[in-house]
Amino acid sequence: MQPAPHDHETILEVEAPRVKFGRGAIAEVGAEAAAMGVRRAALFTDPHVARLELTERARRSLRDAGVDVAEYDGVRIEPTDASFRDAAAFAADAKVDGYVSIGGGSAIDTAKAANLYATYPAPFERYVNAPLGEGAPVPGPLRPHIACPTTSGTGSECTGIAIFDFTAHDVKTGIASRRLRPVLGIVDPDATRTLPSEVVACSGFDVLAHALESYTAKPYTRRPRPATPLARPLSQGANPYSDLACVEALRLLGVHLVRAVEDAHDDEAREAVMYAATLAGIGFGNAGVHVPHGMAYAVAGLVHDFVPAGYDADHAMVPHGMSVIVSAPAVARFTAPTAPDHHRRVAVLLGASTSLHANDAGDALADALAGLMRATRMPSGLRALGYGDDDVPALVDGAFAQQRLLANAPRAVGREELTALFTAAAAYW
Amino acid sequence: MQPAPHDHETILEVEAPRVKFGRGAIAEVGAEAAAMGVRRAALFTDPHVARLELTERARRSLRDAGVDVAEYDGVRIEPTDASFRDAAAFAADAKVDGYVSIGGGSAIDTAKAANLYATYPAPFERYVNAPLGEGAPVPGPLRPHIACPTTSGTGSECTGIAIFDFTAHDVKTGIASRRLRPVLGIVDPDATRTLPSEVVACSGFDVLAHALESYTAKPYTRRPRPATPLARPLSQGANPYSDLACVEALRLLGVHLVRAVEDAHDDEAREAVMYAATLAGIGFGNAGVHVPHGMAYAVAGLVHDFVPAGYDADHAMVPHGMSVIVSAPAVARFTAPTAPDHHRRVAVLLGASTSLHANDAGDALADALAGLMRATRMPSGLRALGYGDDDVPALVDGAFAQQRLLANAPRAVGREELTALFTAAAAYW
Ligand SMILES: NC(=O)c1ccc[n+]([C@@H]2O[C@H](COP(=O)([O-])OP(=O)(O)OC[C@H]3O[C@@H](n4cnc5c(N)ncnc54)[C@H](O)[C@@H]3O)[C@@H](O)[C@H]2O)c1
Ligand SMILES: NC(=O)c1ccc[n+]([C@@H]2O[C@H](COP(=O)([O-])OP(=O)(O)OC[C@H]3O[C@@H](n4cnc5c(N)ncnc54)[C@H](O)[C@@H]3O)[C@@H](O)[C@H]2O)c1
Ligand SMILES: [Zn+2]
Ligand SMILES: [Zn+2]
Repeated sequence: MQPAPHDHETILEVEAPRVKFGRGAIAEVGAEAAAMGVRRAALFTDPHVARLELTERARRSLRDAGVDVAEYDGVRIEPTDASFRDAAAFAADAKVDGYVSIGGGSAIDTAKAANLYATYPAPFERYVNAPLGEGAPVPGPLRPHIACPTTSGTGSECTGIAIFDFTAHDVKTGIASRRLRPVLGIVDPDATRTLPSEVVACSGFDVLAHALESYTAKPYTRRPRPATPLARPLSQGANPYSDLACVEALRLLGVHLVRAVEDAHDDEAREAVMYAATLAGIGFGNAGVHVPHGMAYAVAGLVHDFVPAGYDADHAMVPHGMSVIVSAPAVARFTAPTAPDHHRRVAVLLGASTSLHANDAGDALADALAGLMRATRMPSGLRALGYGDDDVPALVDGAFAQQRLLANAPRAVGREELTALFTAAAAYW
Repeated sequence: MQPAPHDHETILEVEAPRVKFGRGAIAEVGAEAAAMGVRRAALFTDPHVARLELTERARRSLRDAGVDVAEYDGVRIEPTDASFRDAAAFAADAKVDGYVSIGGGSAIDTAKAANLYATYPAPFERYVNAPLGEGAPVPGPLRPHIACPTTSGTGSECTGIAIFDFTAHDVKTGIASRRLRPVLGIVDPDATRTLPSEVVACSGFDVLAHALESYTAKPYTRRPRPATPLARPLSQGANPYSDLACVEALRLLGVHLVRAVEDAHDDEAREAVMYAATLAGIGFGNAGVHVPHGMAYAVAGLVHDFVPAGYDADHAMVPHGMSVIVSAPAVARFTAPTAPDHHRRVAVLLGASTSLHANDAGDALADALAGLMRATRMPSGLRALGYGDDDVPALVDGAFAQQRLLANAPRAVGREELTALFTAAAAYW
């Protein structure tokens, strides 16, 4: 914590939800909901996860605890404004006093949005981040939400963010408020046993990007002070608290990610990646992500006809983690000069030689990332997702709209920089 | 996270409060209290802290935010059952709807107890840990409590524990419940500028002990499963989440503790130790301490006539951190064989050579601890606190009563082991 110049931020505000982590934890969801006074819960899940044995265990636990359940199993993978609205209408009709989500980030984020709009009905734009929405504050506390992630993962159980594809604008954006944070995360690594390896890869790279971007974000001491003590943003920039969680997440990923993708029976590796997801969620929930996520929201929003393997989706889409990681190597080269030692440390955790010199950290980190992508059969860049040079201007527009994320980067990012980054992300091998 | 045998715990439950950390943070207490709906707060502080400029800044912030304040500046340093009762009577009379504590662990713990007994009046023994008390659960939520630590520190802002000297029993004990955890910690390192060096040393060693004991506690996977999902104890034993916070706290202490004690103007070192205190609070709040704290509660409770320098106390007392650290080197030798690599890692963080072999970790860690104690003018052992061989049986009785803490140790600790440990703690140099 360096001394900050006057009028710069000196205060760090950190928060993490209560989390239960471990095999069998899903069976505790009923007792926990009942203890929170929930009598009728909306359960949000997607059509595939709805059929898993794990989800049945959760239903049984809720039933045994006397919690009535209204189940919505239509969560859209990579949700949209329309799918959020539909979920909110369901929750409002169901007259529930609590929320349980079981699934990946798509299910958890959908429950967050349903809780918000069912509790404080408003035109959809009201709470959406500016400039696409009005960015209005959430008026008061929401109903208790217990998030049970089944991917490894988004860390959404730890964050106050809900992400969706704003289809009219061809771009992803989100809603952000401390009040959206679930009150409890129940993280049961048994969930990972049924995960397709493609989902382990994509969601694992999402975790990696959360940790890497948080750790390399603009330090919180370089932000201006907030206007009031209550106006400090969730995404404060890099800070020692988030750094600790993120570096540990990166260490775990360096050891376990490839193993977890390759072998569905490698319980140890899949559990480690799931734990890393929660740690990175704690980290990025307080620090925030930056350029790769900003670029990803354009990449995902503008998708042409890419349909990923391993995902139960009937629509063209780029899975979130894939949309993020395709830009990460290019961004690593771009941000390395702002904090060579941090980039060096990550490169080494991801497999670069310990004799690496900090001056070479950007290239080495980019190479380490590309190596992991290759080892896990990720696309070699934007071209493999169906994007050509002609798409770059639209991608730049989409990413440039993500000013909240770009402002969290360690150096200025304008249209020119984005053009160079999207061009560099065309193919890594 | 090793696979656990059947009927052993597989689930880790972690929680940390919201924390604001940084210079100037104390001025945010009013806005925060008001945002929580507090209209009239009980402010707990001790007679010395009451006169600090920092405390005046907090009063002003509360006033400016329209929060009415009922101030109790009679917190006893190292509180007792009688002083807890007196504080609770004050809070009940003052008809407050929120709590603010400003001071060290003594003030924070007093506010926790006042909040509990004013909100749910009961005979004093009701909520006190068994066997001295009934260990009854706290019946419901407490009023919001904002804890503002001014020492570096106990980490009490992060824990659900309130410690006091049960004078009738000549021993310290506590009250433990998730509900006692403050809703917000405001940690302003400006507080450390007025700390006497003796208080920096004692409270710094308390931090060190929290981190060391949590990291070397019995792993949570070796505990039995709780009877119900809601019955998981706060002190679950060593776990990866607490380990991360504790190892970082130990790293910071290794670099900064001696500097912080020596030089009141070394802002960087004092800030680092204060941050370590919060990290260790997050760690031990979820893992729990063991033998050195169990022994300390007897050492503090049986004090003859020791009056420490630097403390504004008009009664004989052994400051908490001092009472803990005098046993820590002896215990390090005792626990090292259960986890040589962990002990080795701590020894190196505290200054031992990196070529240290794990087999020698116990002695090396004991030596590193004694070296730090010597460098900061701590007593050389129990003899320097006025205890002789004749006191050992009574010390053993007092420590043996701390079964909750002893059960968190990585190996069995009976009267025989305690006798050997108290004897070994007589003098380290
Ligand atoms: N709110 C946040 O903090 C945050 C953070 C990162 C990402 N996100 C968002 O989360 C979404 C992505 O979430 P995700 O990566 O977790 O995946 P997901 O929820 O989109 O699910 C991916 C696929 O995996 C399947 N699946 C999930 N769990 C399974 C299991 N245990 N076994 C078998 N199949 C399973 C689903 O049915 C689906 O086909 C995106 O919308 C992204 O923007 C949100
Ligand atoms: N609840 C928990 O989790 C927990 C953990 C550890 C210790 N404790 C308890 O906390 C108590 C010890 O607390 P502590 O070590 O923080 O010290 P303390 O509150 O007893 O205060 C120690 C001395 O420092 C003075 N002081 C405090 N802040 C000052 C400042 N900023 N400037 C100048 N003087 C200042 C006080 O007036 C007092 O004389 C013990 O009762 C111990 O058992 C509780
Ligand atoms: Zn993401
Ligand atoms: Zn202590």
